[in-house]
Parts: sequence; structure tokens; C-alpha cells
Amino acid sequence: MSSKKTVSQSEDFSVWYIETIKKADLMDYSPVRGCIVFKPAGYALWEAIQKELDARLKETGHENAYFPLFIPQSFFEKEKEHVEGFNPELPWVTEAGGDPLEEKLAIRPTSETMIGHMFSKWVKSYRDLPLLMNQWCNVVRWEKRTLPFLRTSEFLWQEGHTAHATEQEAKEETFKILDLYAEFIESGLAIPVVRGEKTPSEKFAGAVHTYSVEAMMKDGKALQAGTSHYMGQRFAKSFDIQFTDANNQLAYAYTTSWGVSTRLIGALIMVHGDDQGLVLPPRIAPTQVIIIPIGAKGERERVLSYAAQILDRFKAKGIRVKLDDRDNYSPGWKFNEYEAKGIPLRMEIGPRDVNQDQVVLARRDTLEKITVPTAEVLETVDRLFNEIQENLYQQAKANFDRNTHMAETLEALTDIIQTKRGFVLSGWCGDDRCEAKVKEESGAVSRNIPFDPPETMKTCVACGEKAKYTVWFAKSY
Amino acid sequence: MSSKKTVSQSEDFSVWYIETIKKADLMDYSPVRGCIVFKPAGYALWEAIQKELDARLKETGHENAYFPLFIPQSFFEKEKEHVEGFNPELPWVTEAGGDPLEEKLAIRPTSETMIGHMFSKWVKSYRDLPLLMNQWCNVVRWEKRTLPFLRTSEFLWQEGHTAHATEQEAKEETFKILDLYAEFIESGLAIPVVRGEKTPSEKFAGAVHTYSVEAMMKDGKALQAGTSHYMGQRFAKSFDIQFTDANNQLAYAYTTSWGVSTRLIGALIMVHGDDQGLVLPPRIAPTQVIIIPIGAKGERERVLSYAAQILDRFKAKGIRVKLDDRDNYSPGWKFNEYEAKGIPLRMEIGPRDVNQDQVVLARRDTLEKITVPTAEVLETVDRLFNEIQENLYQQAKANFDRNTHMAETLEALTDIIQTKRGFVLSGWCGDDRCEAKVKEESGAVSRNIPFDPPETMKTCVACGEKAKYTVWFAKSY
Repeated sequence: MSSKKTVSQSEDFSVWYIETIKKADLMDYSPVRGCIVFKPAGYALWEAIQKELDARLKETGHENAYFPLFIPQSFFEKEKEHVEGFNPELPWVTEAGGDPLEEKLAIRPTSETMIGHMFSKWVKSYRDLPLLMNQWCNVVRWEKRTLPFLRTSEFLWQEGHTAHATEQEAKEETFKILDLYAEFIESGLAIPVVRGEKTPSEKFAGAVHTYSVEAMMKDGKALQAGTSHYMGQRFAKSFDIQFTDANNQLAYAYTTSWGVSTRLIGALIMVHGDDQGLVLPPRIAPTQVIIIPIGAKGERERVLSYAAQILDRFKAKGIRVKLDDRDNYSPGWKFNEYEAKGIPLRMEIGPRDVNQDQVVLARRDTLEKITVPTAEVLETVDRLFNEIQENLYQQAKANFDRNTHMAETLEALTDIIQTKRGFVLSGWCGDDRCEAKVKEESGAVSRNIPFDPPETMKTCVACGEKAKYTVWFAKSY
Repeated sequence: MSSKKTVSQSEDFSVWYIETIKKADLMDYSPVRGCIVFKPAGYALWEAIQKELDARLKETGHENAYFPLFIPQSFFEKEKEHVEGFNPELPWVTEAGGDPLEEKLAIRPTSETMIGHMFSKWVKSYRDLPLLMNQWCNVVRWEKRTLPFLRTSEFLWQEGHTAHATEQEAKEETFKILDLYAEFIESGLAIPVVRGEKTPSEKFAGAVHTYSVEAMMKDGKALQAGTSHYMGQRFAKSFDIQFTDANNQLAYAYTTSWGVSTRLIGALIMVHGDDQGLVLPPRIAPTQVIIIPIGAKGERERVLSYAAQILDRFKAKGIRVKLDDRDNYSPGWKFNEYEAKGIPLRMEIGPRDVNQDQVVLARRDTLEKITVPTAEVLETVDRLFNEIQENLYQQAKANFDRNTHMAETLEALTDIIQTKRGFVLSGWCGDDRCEAKVKEESGAVSRNIPFDPPETMKTCVACGEKAKYTVWFAKSY
């Protein structure tokens, strides 16, 4: 399948994306509108992301829990902005066990309401705080236009929910998680991100502040890679999360929530993929090395037993390695196959290599091949993993730098968005109408107000008045 | 909370079960009927189970995938027995995104139908077989009577689904998984099980054969701990899973499915728990050792720094250890607390221990205390883990042996079930009506037809005719 002629990234990025996913066998469409099946290769990426991120969340004191899939209708109505934001996307269970339900149950689009309700039962005293919980689960938002991994009606994610005794502590948590996300995405997924605050029109329904990490895809479009929300006391007041503080006074808690989802799989594909297929960073790759034996039939046993020894040595070192010993596919076919799947390193072993105690290593990112003495292969692989990881990050960073612009007028911004591509830094006065105008004219949406902009813009790109904020605008997924 | 007077197992096992769960802080009731919240201590048990079992499933060539939560109504109707079995328990989504749906969507109670549909797209040739997939997910069955962990409307599980080219291979898979479950539950959870086949009235809706592993709780009741189903070609025919075989002939695949769920948490509690609370086997315990510093305030720093050194040494060895250095709870309070939570080993360190380079270890299972030179603590803990694991298994086995009986008449069976407790081995002619009669008279349900019964029974316990099968009967959860 991987030898089929396919569309290149430069010809049509959207078609390339879907074809790349298909070639790498990551997913399939399901018979339910907007829901995909995560095939093993796609789900393995999610498992790798989970493993890395879960360890970081546990190290920082968060505990996993599991809350119900169903949320009673009345819960949504307790937080006005929240219900307005999510109501249009909810699927409703109206009958169960053969009977109509007295109260409709929504399938969770996110769990602030349910968790807020439970927190109110668990928090009595300041000694019960902070509550630092996380849940890995499925959520559903009935989407009109869908795109595999990036926007599907059902998706998988983690959602963290915390409650704190003070405003300061809750704010610190919000930023700590944003930084944790940025660190994980940059070092684990080799994807540079910009941190910043969402504008009011783009913030989470019900939040006081929403912060995001935004990544740039190869086509210059933005992808919101993770969000962290500071709720203040809004959900605590709606769900009655009250506690007795150290001075014996009753007070409302301060809450936060934050999440990343299976859209990170889409980011991996769109940031690192090339015309041969996926390119996976070694740190996150479910399989880091694929060993492919080569040579005439008569030599097969000798080569295989040599390969098996290396396989065992690698496994013992904790390297995620596989040996493809199928004899009904040619080496060339396999090369294409594993390039499409993005395996960071391919090891080729032929009879001549066995004779000379060496192997050939081919990097997926640069497609370079080197011959290495077997005695040195472990340290070489280790070094190459670091080089590939760093190279992928640098390539993504270079793409980001190449495709970031500044614009002082709406005309200039629109021109950049429509004739070039990428992120545009512009000033904004803070008026929703100016933000809406940018979107209308250019198709670009505000991504975030970066904490650390490369430049501080002086005038609003839409109205020309004094700018209050410097904003990243971009088309987005 | 753990010092509160509580009901003992012998007074009222059901009340003891709920109180033990509460004391160990494993779960809370949610506002949605029949759905519980898995609190961190409860969810950690599920994570430990997942980790162990997932490794075993991957080692045996199974791959994880993820299929949609929603199943179109028409899918259920393709397999008559399946729809009849599950229809009464389904919740239905009838509206989404503000509109009524054209076709109702069930929340999955199990995924044979969805996965059957997808397999039919993926299987074309015998080269595509076997397909060996597994999914970790939530499922929903609208239950009338619920009990935390054992029977809840939403629960978490893994469901494996495989397709094979031949009947023999599919049957081998069915048994291989049953054995894998038995091995995991016996060695990981320290719970002995009996393997056998379910009677036709108790088999999975749509299966040709259902096999189960059944465990005995401390009160003598049975708990179905895992099931493995051989579907023959039934689902393949309903969902058109056809392939071209090696002779270029079109053939239907043979499929299997199998699962274990969060009810295993209930089994852990009911098999090992005692009047002090939970008792966790070391191999599955999320925290294996709790270190508790003891002594006067002035000595605190010295004891804590000694404890911290041991903590680090244990962590470096991969032991799951925690140090409780809170100073607002007394050591005695903490002892109760961690006994309630079932932590296998408690380590007490006081000033005198620091002076003498020793620690005190207390076993949760026997409540014995020993003093150990710190130089030997690692090997002692290792040895104690094995001893505790083995002791818990042997205790559970002794409970099983003590509470298994044989009965040749319905009167005898009923007497045992109603005045003693446990499993009763009896003969059965194979007639559904005789099986129903046993249930009616005694309240006991057939558990399974063991592969390896301690005795072969000659006559049907209900009708006195020649027995075709030897069956375990018991009251069950």
C-alpha cells in the first residue's frame, strides 16, 4: 500500500494529511458520524503520549480518578456561560433500560460540572485542599465538520481538575500545568509552542482566564495543543465548593481545569510528517528501531540469528525495537512501509554485514544511511535518537520562524494570511468587534496573547487605536 | 475516620463491604443512578490491574485499539441473540447537536457489533488474519440493582476481540485467554479461580461457548472474575467478516471475545479484606510500603532524614513506597489509616531505631511485627512480599476448600446453600428446566462446568436422571 503514488505536502496539504494517516494505518472511519476508530498504530501513539504525560502529572502530585460519563441536564444549567458554550454540541440520552428518563443525561463534553459537584462533597476544611485530580477518558462534542484526530465527535483526552484555598495557589497551578504541557510537547513531541492567554471570545466557556500552548503545523496553520483554565470562584460558587479556612471562616474554593487530547496525534503528523509519510520523534515513537534482514534465501538463517541477538541486546536496554522477519515481503517494500509509519531508525542487516560484524542504520528524518560496527551500535543508536529528536525540534522551530510575520494593518495581515501563510503578530485594542473583523476579513483567528512576544505592537490592527495587547493571529485547525 | 466503630465481616458481610470501601476511600456515589466515582485510591487499583494485564496481552501478540462509544441501533439487530440479551440494558442517545437523530445510538454495553463491522472492512485475505485486538474503555449497562465495583451502570473494562482463519485457532485463542486470566488473577491478585464452561442459559448473548473463571468471596458467594467467548462464525456471518483463504476460496472468519472489568476491584476487597479493612497483595498494591516516623518532636528531623534515605533506596529498587511525614496525625491514627487502605507493609522508624540502625516492619496480612537491621531491610521486604502474596493466596484457597461441598439431591444442595455457604458441586442432566429449578429452590445459580472437577457427579441434582455434566452451583454477585 505504501508504494502507491500519493499527493505531496506542497500539492495539497489536506489530502496529504489523510493519505499519510491511511498509509501509516493509524485510523479508520467508523459508521458513526464524526467518530473514528483508532487502529493499533494510532492508539499506540496515544499510549506513548499518555505514559509520558501521566508520569509528569503524578510527579507533580496529581492523582488519577474516574468520574461518570453521564451528566444530568440540570448540572449544565448551574453555570450560565458553560451551558451556552457546550449546549449546541451535546448528545443526549433520553431513554435507558426500556424507559424514558426523568431527566435527560448529556454525554460529557468535559467534566467541570460533575467534578464540581463531587468536589463540593469532598471539600469541607482547608485541610482537604488542594484537591489535585486528573482523569483519562473519552468525551463527546457533536461536531459538524470533522477531521481525523484534530476534530472528531468522540475523542480521548485527559482533563485535570483542581481546587485550592487561595487565588494565588490556583493561578500558580494554572501556569504550572501550562508549563508542564509546553515542556512535554517541546521535549517529548519535539514541537515548539507559544504560550499565552486566549482572548475573551476564545476562552473556555465558564473560565475567568484560559491559557494555551499553540503549535504551528507545516502548512503554517495553528493548532491549539493544550489549554489550562483558571476558573476563579465561578464553578465553586455554582457547585457550592465551600470550606472552612484556617480562621474558621467559610470560603469558596478556587478551581482550575486543563487538558490535552488525541489532537496531539494530529500535531505529530502535521509538524514532522513528509512526503514519505510519518516521522516520529524517538522519545515518543512506540517502535524506535525496526530491524530488517536482507539477503538471499540461503543466507536467511544466519542473518536472522545475528539480528535476533541484536534485538535481544536492544530490548534489554529498554529500546523499543522490532524485527520484521516476514519472508513474503521484499526489503524494499518494508523500507517504504516503515518510512510511511515514521519509525525513527531502520537497521538493515545482510550477509556481508554479518561477516564484517556491522549493521546499516538509516535515519527516518534525514534518510541518511551509515554503516556502524556492531560493537558500537548501542551507543550510536543512543546518539542518533538524541540527534533525531533535536533535529526534528529544530526543523519545526525553523518552520515556525520562517512563517511568523508582523502586521500593523488589517490589509497587511490579510495579505500575509492569504498569500503567504503562518502566524501574524499584531496589536489589538481589546474590542471584540476588532477581533471579529480580523477574522471576517482575513480568515485568521486570534490564537493567544503571548507572554513573551517577539515584539510589542503599538496599534490595533483593525481600528488603528492604541493597542492593549499583542496577539498571534492565524488560520487554525 | 478509620477509628470509627464498624461492622465486622461476620456480623454483616454486605455492610462490612460498603464500610470497608468507604474507610479505604476507594469510591463515592455519583448523582447519576448506578454510576460511581472511582476515587484516586480505587482508580489506582484499576491502574495496577491494567498495567499487569496489559503487559500480558501485549506479550501474547494483542494490540490495543479504540472503537466508538456509540453503536447504531441497526447493528444490534444483526445478531438476534445478542440484541435480545443486551436490549433491556441499553441507554439510547436520541438527540445530538440540537437535533433528533435519524437513527438512535446505543452507548456500548460491549463492542462485538461495532468491531465486527470494522473487522469486515479490514479482513480480505487469510494474510490479514489473525486480528488480535483489545480495547480499554468504559461500557454501560443500565442496571436495576447496583453494588459498588461489582455491578454499576457504567464500568471500566478491557474487551478483546479476535478473528481467525480456522475454528481450531479461534478455540485455542479462547482457552489461551482464559488461562491468561486465571494466571493473572491467581498470581497477581492472589485469588484462586475455577475454570469451566458456562451453561447455555448463562452464556454470553450471541456466543457459541462461554468460558469463565469463577472466584469465591469470603462469604462463600461466587464472583465471575473473567469470561472468554468462542463465537464460531456467528458474528462473522452477521457482520460479513469474509476472507479469501489459501486455496482462494471465500470463507467466514471465526471470532472470539473476552473481558475482565473493574469488578476485579470488588473481588480483591471481598477475598482478602478483614475487619481492619482492605488487605492488598503486594504484587498489585499501588503502594507496597508505607513508612511512618515515630517519636518526640525534638527527634523529628533526625528520624525523618533517616526515613528519607530508606525511601530513596527503596524507590531506586522499584519498590512502590511512600513516607507519611504529616505531623498533624498521630502514629496510631496513621496505623489505622493504612491498615484500612490495605498497604502490605508498614515500616515504623523511631529515634531508638535510628540509634540502633534498625526498623520495625508490620505485615498487614498477619499484623505481625518484626525488627530488622536496616542493612537487611531490602532483602527482608522482598522476602515478605513473597510471603504475603503466598499467604493471601493460601488463605483464599483455604476459604475455597472449606466452603466447597457436593450434593446429590436438590434438598441437600438447598440445605448447604441456605444453612452453610459456598460452592456446591452437583450433577446436571443438561435440561434448562432442571437448572432453573435449582435456582428457584435454592437461590444458587450454575457458575460453570469445571474442566477439572474434584469429583464427577453421576445423577442430575434436580431430576435424578443420568448426569451429563458436573456443575458448580453457588449464590453469586
